[in-house]
This record gives sequence, structure tokens and C-alpha cells, in this order.
Amino acid sequence: MLSENHWLTEECEEGGSAFSMRIRSRLHQEQTPFQRIEIYATEYFGNAMVIDGFVMLTEKDNFIYHEMMSHPALFWHPHPKRVVIVGGGDCGTIREVLKHREVEQCIQIELDERVTRLAEQYFPSLCESNNDPRAEFRFMDAIEWMRHARPSSVDVIIVDSTDPVGPAEGLFAEEFYRDCRRTLDDHGIMVQQSESPLFHMDIIKFMRKAMARVGFKEVRSLCFPLPTYPSGWWTATLACKDDVLGEFRQPDVDKRPFVTRYYNTAIHHAAMAAPEFFQKELKA
Amino acid sequence: MLSENHWLTEECEEGGSAFSMRIRSRLHQEQTPFQRIEIYATEYFGNAMVIDGFVMLTEKDNFIYHEMMSHPALFWHPHPKRVVIVGGGDCGTIREVLKHREVEQCIQIELDERVTRLAEQYFPSLCESNNDPRAEFRFMDAIEWMRHARPSSVDVIIVDSTDPVGPAEGLFAEEFYRDCRRTLDDHGIMVQQSESPLFHMDIIKFMRKAMARVGFKEVRSLCFPLPTYPSGWWTATLACKDDVLGEFRQPDVDKRPFVTRYYNTAIHHAAMAAPEFFQKELKA
Repeated sequence: MLSENHWLTEECEEGGSAFSMRIRSRLHQEQTPFQRIEIYATEYFGNAMVIDGFVMLTEKDNFIYHEMMSHPALFWHPHPKRVVIVGGGDCGTIREVLKHREVEQCIQIELDERVTRLAEQYFPSLCESNNDPRAEFRFMDAIEWMRHARPSSVDVIIVDSTDPVGPAEGLFAEEFYRDCRRTLDDHGIMVQQSESPLFHMDIIKFMRKAMARVGFKEVRSLCFPLPTYPSGWWTATLACKDDVLGEFRQPDVDKRPFVTRYYNTAIHHAAMAAPEFFQKELKA
Repeated sequence: MLSENHWLTEECEEGGSAFSMRIRSRLHQEQTPFQRIEIYATEYFGNAMVIDGFVMLTEKDNFIYHEMMSHPALFWHPHPKRVVIVGGGDCGTIREVLKHREVEQCIQIELDERVTRLAEQYFPSLCESNNDPRAEFRFMDAIEWMRHARPSSVDVIIVDSTDPVGPAEGLFAEEFYRDCRRTLDDHGIMVQQSESPLFHMDIIKFMRKAMARVGFKEVRSLCFPLPTYPSGWWTATLACKDDVLGEFRQPDVDKRPFVTRYYNTAIHHAAMAAPEFFQKELKA
């Protein structure tokens, strides 16, 4: 029996499941104009940020998510210079992106500035690149930003958002994908977190079809573990503007001048492996 | 707040976490001479078997575990004819093993016959190969069996046991590994479930060292998702008696005459990919 005083529990309605972490204390809570943000100190997972009841990240396992949202796309792109992050307010993704020396500019467009301010306070290691001169922070609606962005002005778009309910709903929509595609340069790649292969095949299939419909040449989903997200198993879906995703820059991965904790060449290949049921569902 | 009436919750002490499934009803419970077995009907995961409070399997996600415990080892071995399963009472592993036509005999050695009888009743699809003439069932202590087994008489040993506490403790021990190695034929391979890469690196490291100490030539750990086990991420560790694990029989995987739901050639390769932190821990 889990007591509310000692456990932080996230229920996953559609999976008939729940994941709980033992907590020491609640460090912070606030209602912003957009959402309710809570910060907990957990026993095993370090600090955890919870938005509207959903665990967004923990100190213990966020490295898997942030590395998989950034490095595969950046090592697939031939020369990623201009990167835009949609959402990503905890700054873990921009930190990974800025590890790439060839990146000249990375704009993070987060709706809720409070997410970033709280990340600076409670997840300082994720924010250690925030003062990098290549980093720019805009606190606004990324759908709006993308609608007015200069065509062909971005190499990689990373959609690191909350789930497709509430404020992030419009980020899982054909109109937004069309704007992303227009904003991307010729070799452009977008990548978006795309939920659990066990619980959310309907969302994954919807996203992939919508991306293909607006003209992306190839769409590919990567799988990776994510212990604190529902089912402990997650995906990111990539879409290429005009190219097919050929070989990634494997020699550059192997001699990368920065540290990763999950990602490497073997993991890049591994993430592309689709389980049998996954392949069948996508064909259905 | 999770109510005990509607949720089945497994706490993972060492991970400071818990996983819960919404239940319809408890179908069965009993205390055997070895352990307490419960069967639940869950909302999303189908029937679930729980032993001493730990979720052993669910209808929804057991395919990942059973396929990864059997097919990689069997497709690595050049000609797996004689297979022994230690534990595996739910019969999901023997079902996968017997999909391989070259297997001539598969002996399942389960301590607690009640596990198998309840599997027949509540997980009939896992037991659909139990009448295969190549299947043999022994209900006894596998440690004892292995101690007296004829040397070089088995091609593949699959240790599909509960966690290394209680009855299964002796299955994670140097003496048992020595007996397994002696029982294996020249090209023999053993594979054992080896817990979570996030929570149990100490167990994985201990097992690998113990396997190497008793003379196994190569030891390798595979990673795969497992939503209903702690952290949702699991490993199986393989050890080769005298060979190194070279190429697996990929052409045979590609033209396998049976259905899998998780496993395929790409997944076999993917499971071998070690995350950066995992590699570092193993070197430490």
C-alpha cells in the first residue's frame, strides 16, 4: 500500500498502470498560467519535476531521454548548424545539442518560462550550458514561432514537449508539421518524442502518417528505455525533409569530443531496431 | 492514491520505486511449500502471476522476456539440440525453445510444480507446447539436477528463475555456474536473466565475474525492455563454455519458420548494444 506522504505516483490511464517513486519531500509547487509544476526530492531518482501530474524528468534517468532526443538527429544531419528546440524547458536537450561544436545557434522555444527558472534552481547540471553564447531562449508559443519562421532557416528541429494533451496538443498536428517542414533547410530533420511503443501505438501511427502527409520524405521511430515514463519504454520519431535517413556520421560519433552516458554508435544502431509487433503495427 | 482493492503494486526496495497494474480481481492465491503464488486479472496486462509479491509475468508483455531468454542463445549456438531450462515453470520459455526444429529435447526443471499447473490453467497459450514429445518436465531442485548431470550433455542452459533472493539464490552462485559449465557441451551456451541495468549493476557484475571465474570463455549481457519488471528495463547474461560468441546464425533468424513478436535480426543486434554507462560500470 503506497502512502501519499512517501510516494510520488503517476497513473497512466491508457496503460492501466502506475509508476511510483519514494520521496523525501516536496521541494516546490506552483500553478503557472499554463500548468501546475511540482518538484520533489526522491529517494533514488534524485530530484524530479512533475507537470500536471506527469513526471517530466528525474536526475537519475533523464540522460537517456535527452541524449536520444538530440544525438541521433544531430549525427544524422550532415552539418547541423542551426537547431531549434520546441519545449525542452528543463534545458537538458539544449545542453546535449551544444556539445556539438558545429552547432552555431540553438534556440529553445518554451511556452512556460517557469519550467526553465525551476530547472536552473533544482536541476543545475542540466542548465550548465545556458550561458553558452550559441544558446537563445524564447519564452513563447512555439506553434506561433514556427508559423512565422523564415523558410529553410533551420537544420534540426527537436520537439521535446509534454504529452499530446493540454498545451502540447497542437505540437502533434499536421499544421505544425507543415510549418516545421517549411522551416527546415534541404537536409533538415525534425525529431519529436513519440510516447510508449507498448501503450501508444495509435499516437505513433498518427504522427508518422501526419508527417508523411505534409511531405516529409522519410519517417523513422527510435526506441529506448525510459524507466520513469509510462511502461519504461519510449520512442522518438524522426522525419527528414527531402532526404532519406542514410548512414549517420558514425566516425564522428566514435571520435566525439564529449561525454555521453547512454548514447554511442552501437546504441544509435540499436535504437533503429523495430520489434516485430512494432513493424507489423506500422504496416497495418 | 492507489487503493489496494483496485491495484496490484510491486515495490522495488533497491530502486525506491513501485509499479502498479489496475486489477479486476484476484483469480487465485495459494501458499506452496516453496512460495506464495497469486494470479490476478488485470485491466490492461491480461492475467498476471505474482510470486512472493513479485510480478513474474503478464499476458501482455511476457513475449519480450521469453523470446529474449531463448532465441538469441539458440541462434548463437551452431546446432542447439539439447536444451535445459532451469525454472521457467510458466512454460513460456519452453514454448519458444520448441519453435526451433533442430531442438531434439528440452528439459524444464522447475522447483515448484504448482507454478506449471497454474500456468496451464491461467496462461494456456504459454503452455501450448507442453505436449510436444520433445518436452520433458522435472519438478525438482535444478541445483541438485545440475550437480549430477552428465558432463557435456547439454547445448544450451536457460536459467529462467526468480530474483536472487529466496529459493533462487543458489542459481546466482559460482558453484552452480561451475556445474552448468561442466554440463555444457563444447559449443555450449548458458543464459540467465540478470535483472535491471538501472537498479542492479552490482548483481550483473557479480554474475559476470563468477561466470568468468569458473572458466566460461566469453560473457555477454543483452538489454531489452520489460515494462512490468522493476525499471521497465532488463538484461539476460550469456556465457559460452569454450567459444567466443561470434556471429549468430542470422540467415536462420531471417528465414525462421515461426512467429515472434519482439525478436528479429535487428533486435538481436540491438540487444547487444551496451549503453555508455553500462560499459563503464563493467570495466570498473
